[in-house]
Amino acid sequence: MQDQAPAATVSRLITYLRVIRQFEAVGLERTSSEALAEASNVSAFQIRKDLAYFGTFGTRGSGYLVSTIGLRLREILGLTDVYDIAIVGMGRLGQAITDYPAMGEYGFRIRGMFDSDPGKVGLEFAGIEVSPMDSLPTLMRQRNFDMGMIAVPSAAAQEVADTLVSAGVRALLNFAPVVLNVPEGVMVEPVDFVASLKRLSYHLRGKPVLRHAARQAT
Amino acid sequence: MQDQAPAATVSRLITYLRVIRQFEAVGLERTSSEALAEASNVSAFQIRKDLAYFGTFGTRGSGYLVSTIGLRLREILGLTDVYDIAIVGMGRLGQAITDYPAMGEYGFRIRGMFDSDPGKVGLEFAGIEVSPMDSLPTLMRQRNFDMGMIAVPSAAAQEVADTLVSAGVRALLNFAPVVLNVPEGVMVEPVDFVASLKRLSYHLRGKPVLRHAARQAT
Repeated sequence: MQDQAPAATVSRLITYLRVIRQFEAVGLERTSSEALAEASNVSAFQIRKDLAYFGTFGTRGSGYLVSTIGLRLREILGLTDVYDIAIVGMGRLGQAITDYPAMGEYGFRIRGMFDSDPGKVGLEFAGIEVSPMDSLPTLMRQRNFDMGMIAVPSAAAQEVADTLVSAGVRALLNFAPVVLNVPEGVMVEPVDFVASLKRLSYHLRGKPVLRHAARQAT
Repeated sequence: MQDQAPAATVSRLITYLRVIRQFEAVGLERTSSEALAEASNVSAFQIRKDLAYFGTFGTRGSGYLVSTIGLRLREILGLTDVYDIAIVGMGRLGQAITDYPAMGEYGFRIRGMFDSDPGKVGLEFAGIEVSPMDSLPTLMRQRNFDMGMIAVPSAAAQEVADTLVSAGVRALLNFAPVVLNVPEGVMVEPVDFVASLKRLSYHLRGKPVLRHAARQAT
């Protein structure tokens, strides 16, 4: 049943967990759907509905224990497990990923880095050496990567996806702005920030007068 | 009315436009909701429904002209306009953003770069010089940035958001893994790839046996 949670619900659970982590960081012990709602920019009704989808969390009227809800959210999201990740493409984007702070705390571990550029092979980032692209299938078998991050140019992304999928990877994070074709059972998460820019432009669209008026007012 | 299109619809329109661009690139002149569906990993029914939301696109039975649907999608998404962007935070992430190819073609132009690290100020990326953080309000007024990209560490993200909003920016792309508080009318798009990893872990969760069986089979 949990397999059928809509993508939007899963995304909201991720937001709730992020907020709960902030609550934990400041030592808060109890929270309410109202407090969680305010910090998550979601309605309290929506939060209660989302959480109810996965069973009973709190005691009616007395709110939630921050630690309990945090653990339950981690369990629901599969975050009590550890995931080994291979990055393919160690240009500036691949390198920037290795800087990202919030991965390790959720059990996401970068365990492999690959590039087809001989100038990148042998470089080390975060203690891991960049391997040549053609060693990917072999290293996949040795290191059992759970997830692959695709940080190569668009033209190479599908081929990289095919290689990862052939090696048994079932979860891909795709930074290239192309739609990937993968077999059933493989999940692709696009991280396309130009798509995010387009959602922003949709927000701003057709408001040039307002936009310019606002500017002149500053 | 268009203002009320659900976020999920807007996201799908962005996917359709990405596919249409691929069709344009190979010289395809006509398409159908079925072909668009296949390439977008969405049902044909959903596509017809999404497009109907914004009026009539094609002639019943004869499909869509690729050029017409492309232009309409650009208009709907506000992509026939040009948007000037300021990046705040010119570490590896900020630098990686300047490499991203697909921005210019949609009218997103990076026109300002800011960092609080004196070692970064004065460096040039993509022809733009990095300015000191405290010159941000002044430069905002001169250059009329439409959007701000926040590529600073989490601890600094809210302060940067406040500065951008005070300067009149109404659209923020946030790469820091924190929830930002902004006044009404300001839109924040989070680009949190750890959230994407969590959606992947939700997909893989509770399947260690399957995962390991799949591994051993390879």
